[in-house]
Amino acid sequence: MKALVYHGPGRRSWEDVPDPGIVQPADAVVRVDAVTICGTDLHILKGDVPAVEPGRILGHEAVGTVVAAGAAVSAVKEGDRVLVSCITACGRCRYCRSGSYGQCLGGGGWILGHRVDGTQAEYVRVPYADTSTHLLPAGVSDEAALMLADILPTSYEVGVLNGRVRPGDTVVVVGAGPIGLAAITTARLFTPGHVVAVDLAAARLEAAKRFGADLLVGPGDDAAAAVAEVTRGLGADVAIEAVGVPETFELCARLVRPGGHVANVGVHGAPAVLHLEDLWIRNVTITTGLVDTYSTPALLDMVAAGRLDPAAFVTHRFELREMEAAYRTFADAGSTGALKVVLSRRPAAR
Amino acid sequence: MKALVYHGPGRRSWEDVPDPGIVQPADAVVRVDAVTICGTDLHILKGDVPAVEPGRILGHEAVGTVVAAGAAVSAVKEGDRVLVSCITACGRCRYCRSGSYGQCLGGGGWILGHRVDGTQAEYVRVPYADTSTHLLPAGVSDEAALMLADILPTSYEVGVLNGRVRPGDTVVVVGAGPIGLAAITTARLFTPGHVVAVDLAAARLEAAKRFGADLLVGPGDDAAAAVAEVTRGLGADVAIEAVGVPETFELCARLVRPGGHVANVGVHGAPAVLHLEDLWIRNVTITTGLVDTYSTPALLDMVAAGRLDPAAFVTHRFELREMEAAYRTFADAGSTGALKVVLSRRPAAR
Repeated sequence: MKALVYHGPGRRSWEDVPDPGIVQPADAVVRVDAVTICGTDLHILKGDVPAVEPGRILGHEAVGTVVAAGAAVSAVKEGDRVLVSCITACGRCRYCRSGSYGQCLGGGGWILGHRVDGTQAEYVRVPYADTSTHLLPAGVSDEAALMLADILPTSYEVGVLNGRVRPGDTVVVVGAGPIGLAAITTARLFTPGHVVAVDLAAARLEAAKRFGADLLVGPGDDAAAAVAEVTRGLGADVAIEAVGVPETFELCARLVRPGGHVANVGVHGAPAVLHLEDLWIRNVTITTGLVDTYSTPALLDMVAAGRLDPAAFVTHRFELREMEAAYRTFADAGSTGALKVVLSRRPAAR
Repeated sequence: MKALVYHGPGRRSWEDVPDPGIVQPADAVVRVDAVTICGTDLHILKGDVPAVEPGRILGHEAVGTVVAAGAAVSAVKEGDRVLVSCITACGRCRYCRSGSYGQCLGGGGWILGHRVDGTQAEYVRVPYADTSTHLLPAGVSDEAALMLADILPTSYEVGVLNGRVRPGDTVVVVGAGPIGLAAITTARLFTPGHVVAVDLAAARLEAAKRFGADLLVGPGDDAAAAVAEVTRGLGADVAIEAVGVPETFELCARLVRPGGHVANVGVHGAPAVLHLEDLWIRNVTITTGLVDTYSTPALLDMVAAGRLDPAAFVTHRFELREMEAAYRTFADAGSTGALKVVLSRRPAAR
């Protein structure tokens, strides 16, 4: 089969590799019908994630069709259309048993395209298939479902739920890329008072506005003053970090009100400064996290019911064999305006 | 009257000052029957808390007797024995109405011995007396009640409750001074699996053992290894910072397990390094906070019922006029072994 293989920092290729097969009884092999590229894949290609070894097939998001299921698999069977979640869960360890699938101790967690071969391929082996895939209802398109492999549950769980967004809150989202836009979308489920989007790029702020931000803070603007104006000087109830650099985290810590929440979603490669000399007295809660995907079934229900339209994140469509072109379009989002790119086994239907 | 007056960094004196009186209708004037000294007072004397101006009477913890009450005061009256809490609450602002008294926007919060004259004096004016004092039941001694002015609710709310200690948890307390010992005491109310005390001083580790820590980590020990041994390598469920320097905060962040809580209680004067490059993926929750004292009524009930013995924190007793000697004893805790010192209007009864 063909797959996107990582060959060390800066090097990737769409090339021939052996087909995957069942290795463990809990495995399934899934034919990839739709797959996307994540900002994390770009981090890997920069060499920021040293656990990814050369030779690894990248990708941790897919929608596909089960073509083989191991003897221990009972929840899905050959022919089923499934969502392959970015989180693999053994379902048995103490973390899985408390719903913290992202921290799975049984060899799961974020492993696809990281510690085992991933989804940017014609086929993928999915360990612990019963607890790592979700059967898809007929009314949910591949494209919509694909947004539930990572970005929507990540933004919702790690940003909105960890940040404890409540009705009437002023929510600041720093970074209006796909994750930040998904945070805006899912924060709005809680009827916040204001959603403030902060980004350096005008195009991303425009997107934030389309997704429902009512206050936009660009590079020339004073974020603290903007937040103060809509909060009577108090600061944001919730600040969601959706970039992954020290400056944006530190900005979130400055924008949050006493008693508020800073929810870090960004993938960081460097430490930040935590100004405890200001924060110790301010009753601030800071959370970090990898998604657990405990919310995926509920999000799927909402998509099926038309309450969420995740296909709005998709800006560019490719055939699977155009993987290299898709990477270039996604990596050059500044000029292409790409949010999420979708690669399909069949030519795009829409 | 006599009072302990701050005269700028490094300078204090027990001297004659004017008696306080009712200024606002919600004020009470309380005769100080017992008062203590807090580590924060030492920070102020070092010049670490610039909001404290020269001429300020220090102290934010007292038990006393109401000698005058303003026209708007209805919950306490002349002759009542009361706890003067370290937190003053207007009771009306949005923070007070949500129980976040420490963040009071109506001129309260931590103000005694900070922004208004404090309790290390023969008399103290207490603003918003109805919502800033607690009537004391007869069965609770002055000394025991005094420990509820600050250290017990602070350790309990900001350490144990913010840290979400649960039965069976491994709780690490970094710093075994009075606040750390109070964290150990109140963590034990939740029947943790292990309480690990970390300190540089052997005498404080001995105290931690008396207060119920079952694992002691001294300067020659590897804290991470000790915690790993009792948690099957996972790390602490909760790490409570009770010192207030960057190194101890950073240690807490290293000792906590994925999904665990770091609860900062220490008063910090400098920033810490937050290793987001490790923490982003680990679902860690970090909290900071000034005490709100919402737990004080429940703690008072527990003391009255004999479920907590806060007098165990008291190592040295003085008469009020011995304020200077008490400060010397407390500041030199390394050699005197002082935990909490109590100064009483009358010679100590016990």
